[in-house]
Amino acid sequence: METRVLEIRKGILNKNDEIARRLRERLHACGLLTINLVSSPGSGKTAFLQRTLRMLREARIPAAALVGDLATDNDAKRLVEAGVPVKQINTDGRCHLEAQMISDHLADWDLNLFEYLFIENVGNLVCPSSYDLGEDVRVVLLSVTEGEDKPLKYPNIFNSADIAVITKMDLAEACEFDLEAAQRNIRAVRPGMRILRTSSKSGAGMEDWLECLAQEKSARAAVV
Amino acid sequence: METRVLEIRKGILNKNDEIARRLRERLHACGLLTINLVSSPGSGKTAFLQRTLRMLREARIPAAALVGDLATDNDAKRLVEAGVPVKQINTDGRCHLEAQMISDHLADWDLNLFEYLFIENVGNLVCPSSYDLGEDVRVVLLSVTEGEDKPLKYPNIFNSADIAVITKMDLAEACEFDLEAAQRNIRAVRPGMRILRTSSKSGAGMEDWLECLAQEKSARAAVV
Repeated sequence: METRVLEIRKGILNKNDEIARRLRERLHACGLLTINLVSSPGSGKTAFLQRTLRMLREARIPAAALVGDLATDNDAKRLVEAGVPVKQINTDGRCHLEAQMISDHLADWDLNLFEYLFIENVGNLVCPSSYDLGEDVRVVLLSVTEGEDKPLKYPNIFNSADIAVITKMDLAEACEFDLEAAQRNIRAVRPGMRILRTSSKSGAGMEDWLECLAQEKSARAAVV
Repeated sequence: METRVLEIRKGILNKNDEIARRLRERLHACGLLTINLVSSPGSGKTAFLQRTLRMLREARIPAAALVGDLATDNDAKRLVEAGVPVKQINTDGRCHLEAQMISDHLADWDLNLFEYLFIENVGNLVCPSSYDLGEDVRVVLLSVTEGEDKPLKYPNIFNSADIAVITKMDLAEACEFDLEAAQRNIRAVRPGMRILRTSSKSGAGMEDWLECLAQEKSARAAVV
């Protein structure tokens, strides 16, 4: 029984991979850098994205965002305040986004208008790791309130990501967060991984994050 | 493709439900109350369980625990310090526990020795909601650092739980946590749900939690 499920899941994953591959080509043709944000529920993806979008808007760098949730459009409402195009994807109870959902929700946007496309995945440290969304960069967020051992306990999602962002640094002291241990655990799972430290509340580290995105973008432009 | 997967998943769920039903009968025959703890990664399940087990031990109430993770045995190591029998279940990358895993890991324990059996599920606010583990009480934990809207965004897991525990209350002020909003959102999804507030750090609310378990146990004993 289990074997059959795994085989069929592999089939779906391959179908997802194909859709993701075509989507990536389409996004590259428009000159977009696409960022898939993954994390546990409550790690602060929406606050992080809200601040990112506001800063990009102030810098007159056009960006758009898709945001996935099992239910509600709370996140889209919060992000719309940043003054950029945002769409909510409701997964109807599914625990991850898939490439087809991204493709469907981009249908009526002119992608040539944007420099960056952000995708906020469903809050889940397990299942989204298996689904390529056609992104260029997968960013895993870890908040200081979650504990330093999460990379060891959820290795797949940290291993499949390109950049780690430690969020809610303003709460680090109150949580007795051990930054060295967290960084060591991230790099035990993904050696050499770039790690940023931010606070969406104070804005600390957000300039470094935007600089990091700009570097990713120009590195990719140089390759294409 | 999708339809086939859903059908097969339904098959697995039914198989899981059957195993869970048999397991529940077996646990009841031993006079155990079984508690399944579910939450997002980093909500403080292990710290909560650690304090619970220590308090039960001091009160000479025998308990045991099974703890599920994708990888590592960190949680079991932490729980063993409470001085009660603990076993780690590694799900090998799977995003939830299943009834068969519980049954297998209980095989060499004499269940007649215990009053309570705690199961700490994989940290995931989505997938564990669909898997009955033979428990009597499903408890969903929500930490103040995660935001008040999680019940609306992950309705299935709150709806399928019997008791909600708001954890890390010691951080409520630093996180500007809105307790009223959180309680309103929990009860929007699950009207009348019992909600406890705890801090595993200070111990606040832990006596209420043990009292709540004792009530659940005597209510069930009265029915049987």
